[in-house]
Amino acid sequence: MLNDSRMRILIAPSGFKESLDAVDVAGAIAAGVRRVLPGARVDTAPMVDGGEGTAAAMARATGGRLVPVRVEGPVGEPVDAHFAILGGPGPRTALVEMAAAAGLRLVPRDARDPGRTSTYGVGRLIAAALDQGCERIIVGCGDSGTSDGGAGMLQALGAGLLDADGEQVGRGGYELARVARIDASTLDPRIARTRIDLACNIYNLLTGPKGVARVFGPQKGAAPEQVDRLDAALSHWGDLLSEHAGTDLRTAPGSGASGGLGAGAAGVLGARLVPRFEVLTDHLDLDRRIAAADLVITAEGAIDYQTPNGKVPAEVARRAKRLDTPVVALAGTVGRGAALSHAAGIDAIAGIIAAPLDLAGAIERASTLTRDAAERTLRMILVGTALNGGSNDRIPADSGAALSGRGD
Amino acid sequence: MLNDSRMRILIAPSGFKESLDAVDVAGAIAAGVRRVLPGARVDTAPMVDGGEGTAAAMARATGGRLVPVRVEGPVGEPVDAHFAILGGPGPRTALVEMAAAAGLRLVPRDARDPGRTSTYGVGRLIAAALDQGCERIIVGCGDSGTSDGGAGMLQALGAGLLDADGEQVGRGGYELARVARIDASTLDPRIARTRIDLACNIYNLLTGPKGVARVFGPQKGAAPEQVDRLDAALSHWGDLLSEHAGTDLRTAPGSGASGGLGAGAAGVLGARLVPRFEVLTDHLDLDRRIAAADLVITAEGAIDYQTPNGKVPAEVARRAKRLDTPVVALAGTVGRGAALSHAAGIDAIAGIIAAPLDLAGAIERASTLTRDAAERTLRMILVGTALNGGSNDRIPADSGAALSGRGD
Repeated sequence: MLNDSRMRILIAPSGFKESLDAVDVAGAIAAGVRRVLPGARVDTAPMVDGGEGTAAAMARATGGRLVPVRVEGPVGEPVDAHFAILGGPGPRTALVEMAAAAGLRLVPRDARDPGRTSTYGVGRLIAAALDQGCERIIVGCGDSGTSDGGAGMLQALGAGLLDADGEQVGRGGYELARVARIDASTLDPRIARTRIDLACNIYNLLTGPKGVARVFGPQKGAAPEQVDRLDAALSHWGDLLSEHAGTDLRTAPGSGASGGLGAGAAGVLGARLVPRFEVLTDHLDLDRRIAAADLVITAEGAIDYQTPNGKVPAEVARRAKRLDTPVVALAGTVGRGAALSHAAGIDAIAGIIAAPLDLAGAIERASTLTRDAAERTLRMILVGTALNGGSNDRIPADSGAALSGRGD
Repeated sequence: MLNDSRMRILIAPSGFKESLDAVDVAGAIAAGVRRVLPGARVDTAPMVDGGEGTAAAMARATGGRLVPVRVEGPVGEPVDAHFAILGGPGPRTALVEMAAAAGLRLVPRDARDPGRTSTYGVGRLIAAALDQGCERIIVGCGDSGTSDGGAGMLQALGAGLLDADGEQVGRGGYELARVARIDASTLDPRIARTRIDLACNIYNLLTGPKGVARVFGPQKGAAPEQVDRLDAALSHWGDLLSEHAGTDLRTAPGSGASGGLGAGAAGVLGARLVPRFEVLTDHLDLDRRIAAADLVITAEGAIDYQTPNGKVPAEVARRAKRLDTPVVALAGTVGRGAALSHAAGIDAIAGIIAAPLDLAGAIERASTLTRDAAERTLRMILVGTALNGGSNDRIPADSGAALSGRGD
C-alpha cells in the first residue's frame, strides 16, 4: 500500500540534554529516514518544553524573530537575554523564555543559593515585549535558577512587595518572608490588557512536601537548612498571593513552575498556568501535522519510567493516539520502566546506541548515532509492512554494499 | 492479515562469543518475542559453526546424546572430551567437535606454541565414534589450538608419518618438516568404509600468504620466527599430502581448517571438505523450517563488514532469501560496515544495547539485553504491519503498565 514516494513521516523529537537540541535531533532522524526512503514526505517538528532554547526554536519554527535585551540577571549582574516575537497569524505574540533571563546556567556555581537569586530580568523581558506591541505573551518555564516565587518579575513590572514599614523588599526568595502586603496599584498598566500564558509543568507546586523548595532547591544549590528557610518563605508568599488573588495558589497545578514564578504570575499578573505542551504545540500546529502523517517518530535523551509524566514523547504519542497514528520513539537511553510508555501510546522504542559505548562517547557521537538508529528503525518497520502482504523488495540494500563474488 | 496466534517466527541465532551460547541466545529472543506476541508460533534453531559447543548443541537440537571420552589433549595431557551421536533418521552419525579434543581453550597460555600442539585426541574421538558403530562422521572445525595439519589425528588412527629412517615422527607441526613418507596401509580399516565430512570454513587454506600459519599462528601463540618455521613445515606437508592423494591440497578450500586438519583429513582419510553451514544445517533441517516461517530472527555478537563472509546471520539470510522470507538480525555490536549485510539478505538490524554501557556490562547482561531487544524489535515490526493497513490495536501495551490517573 505504502511506498517510498507516498509515506508521510512526522519527526517530532525533544532535544537530547547536554548533547543535541531538538532541531539537530530532528535533522539527524530525517537524514536516517531518507537513507531508507529517499522519497518519503518528511515533516520535522522539533519539540520544545519551555526551558532553555525554547524562544530560539519557536522563532525558527514559526518564522518569527528573536529580540535581544540586556537585563538584570539572577544574581544581579547584567546578562544578554532575548525573547521571541512569533510569526504566523493572530495577535502579535511574544515567547518569553524565563531561562534566558534567570536560568540556572546564568548562576555561577559559587552563587547557587536559590534563596538569593531573582527573576527580575524576566519582568524586564515582559516589559520589553510590551514595548514591541505584543498583545499576547507566552512565558516558557523550565531550567530556572531561581526560587523567588516570581517576586523579582513582579517588582520589575512595577508591583510593590512591601515590608511592615511599607518599604519594597529586596531580591530573592528569603526576602519573601518579610513581605507584609502586595500593592498591585503601581503595576505596569499594559499588563491588565495583555493575555499572559505560562507554559509550565503542571506537576510543579509552590508549597507543601512536594513544593519547589524541597523538590528543586537542592539541585539549585540549597543546603538542607536553606531549603527549610526557603520553603517557609514561599509558604508565607503563597498565603499572601492566595489572599490577593482570591483563590488558593499554594498547591495550584503549575504554581511551582520555575521556582514559584507560576504562582506570582497567576496571583498578581492574572496569568493562566497552562500545561507547557498545550500552549507550545498550538503554535506548532502539531495536531494538524500528525493528522497528515502515516507515522510519527519522536525522541528523547531517555525513555524510562518518567516518560509518561509529561515528557515530549508521551505528549506527542497522546496526541497521535487520538488520530490512531503509530508512534515510535528513539532514545539515547532505554531505561528502567520504558515499557510503561507503551500504555502512554508509544508503540515501539529503539535505542540509538549500537555498541558498547560510554556516556561521553554517546554524547559526542549523538548525531551520527541518531541518524543510524533512525535508518535501522525504518528498515525494521518496513520488514513489518512487507510481512503484512507488502513486497520485501522495497527495502533497499545499500547500493554501495555490493558483495564480491565470494560465497560458500 | 497476521495476528498473534498465526505469526510463525523462526529464531536462528549464533552464540555470542564469551557470553551466551546459541541455545541461550535463541531462548532469550524467544522470551522477548513472546512478551509481545504470546501466541506466536516460535521455532528455535540455535546455529553452530563447527567450533566449541557444536557437539553439545547438535546433540540437543537433533535429540541425540553426548558420549564422554578421555583423550590425549593438544599438549599431551589427558583431557575429558566428548563427541555427539546425532538423533534423527538416516545412518548413525557422529559429530566430532575437534575443539573438544584440541581446542585453543585446552592449551595453557604458557604452552601456546602451535608448532608443538597436536590433534592426536581428535583421532581418538573418531576411533571412539567408530567403536560406537557410527557409519558417518562429521568433524566440526573451529576454535582449534593446533597447527599440525591433522598429523596427530592421522597417527591416532594408525597412519604412519615416517621420517627418513622409517620412524614415526613426533607430535606437532614442526615435526611435519621431518616426514619423508605417508604410510596409510596401517590405517584403521573402518575409515575406508566411513563417510567423513569436515564442516569447515572454506576460506581457510593450508599454505601460501593466506595459509593457516600466517593467518592463525599469531593468535595461537606463535612468534614471527615460529610462524615462518611452521609455514615451511606445513608447505612440505602440503606437498606430501597432495602427492599422496593425487590432488592439490595446498590451497584447496578448507584445507587450512583447524590448523590444516582439513588437508590431513582430505588427503589421508578421504574426508570431504564441506562449507560448515551446509553440513550442519542439513541436520537442523533449516531450509524446511525457514519455509514454514513468516519471519526469521537471527543474531550474532557483532554485525559488521565481516558478516557477509560466511557468518551465521548472512548464511541464514542467504537461505531465507531463496524463499523470500524477511530476516532481521540482532547484534551485541552493530559495527562498521553493518550496512553491507543488507546486500547479503539481512533486511534490518537492531542492536541489543539499550543505554551507554561498557563491554563487560554488556557481556554480563547479555541475556536480558537480548530478550529486551527482541521485544523492542517485534514491536517495531508490528508498527510496520499496522502501517500497511493492519490495525494498530494489536500492539499490546504492557498490561502491568497501567498509568495512574495523572496527566495534563
